[in-house]
Amino acid sequence: MCEHQHVRYNPLKGDWVLVSAHRMKRPWSGQEEKPPEENIPRHDPKNPLCPGVTRANGKVNPDYDSTFLFDNDFPALQPDAPDPGPSEHPLLQAASARGKCQVMCFHPWTDITLPLMSLAEIRTVIDNWAEITTDLGTNHRWVQLFENKGAVMGCSNPHPHCQVWASSFLPNEAAAADKNQKEYFNKHQSPMLVDYYKLEKEKRERIVVENEDWLVVVPYWAVWPYETLVLPRRHVLRLPDLTSSERDALADITKRLLCKYDNLFEVSFPYSMGWHGAPTGDLAEAENSHWQLHAHYYPPLLRSATVRKFMVGFEMLAQAQRDLTAEQAAEKLRNLPELHYKIKRQ
Amino acid sequence: MCEHQHVRYNPLKGDWVLVSAHRMKRPWSGQEEKPPEENIPRHDPKNPLCPGVTRANGKVNPDYDSTFLFDNDFPALQPDAPDPGPSEHPLLQAASARGKCQVMCFHPWTDITLPLMSLAEIRTVIDNWAEITTDLGTNHRWVQLFENKGAVMGCSNPHPHCQVWASSFLPNEAAAADKNQKEYFNKHQSPMLVDYYKLEKEKRERIVVENEDWLVVVPYWAVWPYETLVLPRRHVLRLPDLTSSERDALADITKRLLCKYDNLFEVSFPYSMGWHGAPTGDLAEAENSHWQLHAHYYPPLLRSATVRKFMVGFEMLAQAQRDLTAEQAAEKLRNLPELHYKIKRQ
Ligand SMILES: O=P(O)(O)O[C@H]1O[C@H](CO)[C@@H](O)[C@H](O)[C@H]1O
Ligand SMILES: O=P(O)(O)O[C@H]1O[C@H](CO)[C@@H](O)[C@H](O)[C@H]1O
Repeated sequence: MCEHQHVRYNPLKGDWVLVSAHRMKRPWSGQEEKPPEENIPRHDPKNPLCPGVTRANGKVNPDYDSTFLFDNDFPALQPDAPDPGPSEHPLLQAASARGKCQVMCFHPWTDITLPLMSLAEIRTVIDNWAEITTDLGTNHRWVQLFENKGAVMGCSNPHPHCQVWASSFLPNEAAAADKNQKEYFNKHQSPMLVDYYKLEKEKRERIVVENEDWLVVVPYWAVWPYETLVLPRRHVLRLPDLTSSERDALADITKRLLCKYDNLFEVSFPYSMGWHGAPTGDLAEAENSHWQLHAHYYPPLLRSATVRKFMVGFEMLAQAQRDLTAEQAAEKLRNLPELHYKIKRQ
Repeated sequence: MCEHQHVRYNPLKGDWVLVSAHRMKRPWSGQEEKPPEENIPRHDPKNPLCPGVTRANGKVNPDYDSTFLFDNDFPALQPDAPDPGPSEHPLLQAASARGKCQVMCFHPWTDITLPLMSLAEIRTVIDNWAEITTDLGTNHRWVQLFENKGAVMGCSNPHPHCQVWASSFLPNEAAAADKNQKEYFNKHQSPMLVDYYKLEKEKRERIVVENEDWLVVVPYWAVWPYETLVLPRRHVLRLPDLTSSERDALADITKRLLCKYDNLFEVSFPYSMGWHGAPTGDLAEAENSHWQLHAHYYPPLLRSATVRKFMVGFEMLAQAQRDLTAEQAAEKLRNLPELHYKIKRQ
């Protein structure tokens, strides 16, 4: 089946992806990406994410030596936007949107990335993610933690950091994941992604890395060439519910996954990643046992450090299409070393 | 309302977009795109889309002097893929996908684009679009015509051309548009986009260009900064149903729209565009009066010829977000001249 085109169903989104594995063979004369800058200074007094720097709005960053959380100076979501009022026509519907946007630096150094940080440092990042979810989750229905890594993923600053956009509403992707997990739960009396964890553990065809508490797979329905899904073994609703040993194990699996990613094309691997857990705020009280915490990694590179997959044309107007199977991608990642190529070379 | 963040409903997709107009003010130090090559040769004997050239598979292009249609040498959809058979688990669902992929060159010259072609030449392209829809529509449920323009939109060849991917199934976007138009029709006894045409003609806030048969608006729910929607005045199901004078009027409106696009940042404006009409093949017989033919233009540029909008992080994991309102974008495009900047300068 693998070599012939077919479609696969994404049970989280409720849509389909076209898999045409033979497309990898076509010649590429399109756009080539610039590989990421190699000579990034450790500290740049003009970089608004560095310790001790004065930001555009006059605020001075502390001399932080671990992580650093602050309010986004150009937030897409603010707490006090007025309600647009009733819509005048069913085709001109608007609704209010309130929220909060924050930025979290992973480390005081600009020239480091998560896979090169120590397990203890990654564990601190994880603890911070959990805390932010608890804090912003008290009065927001959805807390979206995400990292845009690399210029090709619209990241505007090389300093290692992630963002949090917390909103008064369930965004589209969250609403779809909620609906589809609920439907599965009602039908099978078991959380979808808990079942999926078991299935992949047994099949072993799409596993990238695993430890006693976590599993990383290229999901059966992956869209991006080397997309992965991070799943806890235990049924866990949200990041703050993780035990201390599960957090240590998450640091371990994250470092191993990201080293493999960097080793694939021997480049600091660009991606957008983010966490999805059960809704929060006033939705936290609802029945949420159909939810299972998970992280998505969406990396754009397809063939090399400079040739990415473009989700354009057919993808935008009709349906996502991928050029290699999930099993091929998983096998490639699985077989890569876990020691980072930059360390190996030292 | 405009200046404050809010969400707007997309009645074709059935999802929401976050509008945070104040975000245009933030500084940009992220990736800059290379502006498109200015010195493209009119004919390149190595370019597989040029007249008289031998393609990778040994086939020789005719010495065409108008449009030229041929089968894609690396098709994502082929007519004979085997059925993957019954799925073994509800979380591992695959289905068969069959189809055909073609490429259509708009013009024998590599250094020309649609806005610089004559009305008669554009009319020929439109007639070809209609013919292809008829031909492939006889035995495919969906015929997706699309143009990826510019390297930033994954276009691998500067020669003016579009693609056709015809499929045995309704792709995700088509299925959503079908469902949502049907629901609207059942509720309002009128096709959604026929009502929307009237509404926008009356409001006049989001109009970019118009003539007696066509209207181009930045839709109320636009996601891409300068996204537009092309709507016929008359209720029309598919491209082949257009009358001769409607086709001439479409050539006129297309040329005017694309000149404005190029004039916005004085650059050959990149985009993915495509046509959506009522389903075809064995679905053509069904009740399709809820459908209205339309074209989408999805251009990525945001601030200049080199700074694009990145749909990453929050957009991939949560919800699309835009940095200027549809009304601001429409006003900007509306006020631009219709004479192409390259002609003005001659
Ligand atoms: O057909 P091309 O130019 O090789 O490829 C381009 O268009 C396709 C259809 O939109 C996409 O799947 C590819 O990612 C893109 O690079
Ligand atoms: O927050 P930044 O780095 O300014 O912006 C980046 O992430 C945002 C959230 O994913 C996107 O909306 C922007 O298009 C992208 O450039």
